[in-house]
Amino acid sequence: MTFGELARWERGSERVLVSTKILDLRSVRFRNPAKEIEKDFVVIHAPDWVNVVALTPGNHLVLVRQFRFGANAFSLEIPGGMIEKGEDPVTAGTRELLEETGFGGGVASLIGSVQPNPAIQDNRCHFVLVDGAVPTGPLHWDSDEEIETSTAPVADVLAWARSGKITHSLTIAALTFLEGIRRI
Amino acid sequence: MTFGELARWERGSERVLVSTKILDLRSVRFRNPAKEIEKDFVVIHAPDWVNVVALTPGNHLVLVRQFRFGANAFSLEIPGGMIEKGEDPVTAGTRELLEETGFGGGVASLIGSVQPNPAIQDNRCHFVLVDGAVPTGPLHWDSDEEIETSTAPVADVLAWARSGKITHSLTIAALTFLEGIRRI
Repeated sequence: MTFGELARWERGSERVLVSTKILDLRSVRFRNPAKEIEKDFVVIHAPDWVNVVALTPGNHLVLVRQFRFGANAFSLEIPGGMIEKGEDPVTAGTRELLEETGFGGGVASLIGSVQPNPAIQDNRCHFVLVDGAVPTGPLHWDSDEEIETSTAPVADVLAWARSGKITHSLTIAALTFLEGIRRI
Repeated sequence: MTFGELARWERGSERVLVSTKILDLRSVRFRNPAKEIEKDFVVIHAPDWVNVVALTPGNHLVLVRQFRFGANAFSLEIPGGMIEKGEDPVTAGTRELLEETGFGGGVASLIGSVQPNPAIQDNRCHFVLVDGAVPTGPLHWDSDEEIETSTAPVADVLAWARSGKITHSLTIAALTFLEGIRRI
């Protein structure tokens, strides 16, 4: 494989089309010097996200089930959320895990990062492993959150992904990184 | 695991905040009958997408590298794109594969579907396997596309995902489905 022949587009000025609490929609001017063309592209600007692979001492994965407004349906996922300004992914991941599920403790580490959608989004999603998580504290849900927590063997979760019971692409990608560090 | 205790939100009226060629940003009213509250949530409306797991007769995966405007960087991915009105995922996948890479032939089948982001998006991404793909035709890039095609052993691609060389979450999720039907 040879890299480097493709022309790089240069990012120019941008304007915010809509600003919301969770993301901005922007129109960004790009210029291709090789082709001598300029065009506007839509870019979703959002803070980085974190998703948490929390394993219990019995090697079960901590899952959350909640209503998701985009899909207009319930969704079974691993815990996660937006990383706040100044937070590193591990701090954000352990915070989200505790707030959403009450699970904490164990050893937390960053096991991978992805781009949810490099074509139209500028942010990354980080995957944090919390190894040895146990129920430790009270829940702190946002006002419109209502979350059901459960645990299941990782192999079952992978089977659920392949059979359509788990459909969240970031949860499925997180399993790939977990497989990279231990056999499921 | 017990399901069903969580209150379902009811989707109400919506208004389009911004409409673009590839997606609409909408504000959607949801009502929670159990809590007796109503709130507006941001939803990205987009057509379903398709990503193509194309394997050559030598069991190499077909990859594309292109500039991605969201990430403002080059990205190594599997081929894919938007499903057009009236297309089924398999038709759209074989079309995108041929347009972007010139690969065709083989046997095409749907091996899985995910939600790219159920929290804020309403669409799905379908994964189509094209088994036995070979170079067959000329390329048909969109005016702002410039795509470098390559092939690599699937195990290498998985290693690249885990080492950060492949970062596209949907490409990584697609590998999970491929692993579900054959050992990598």
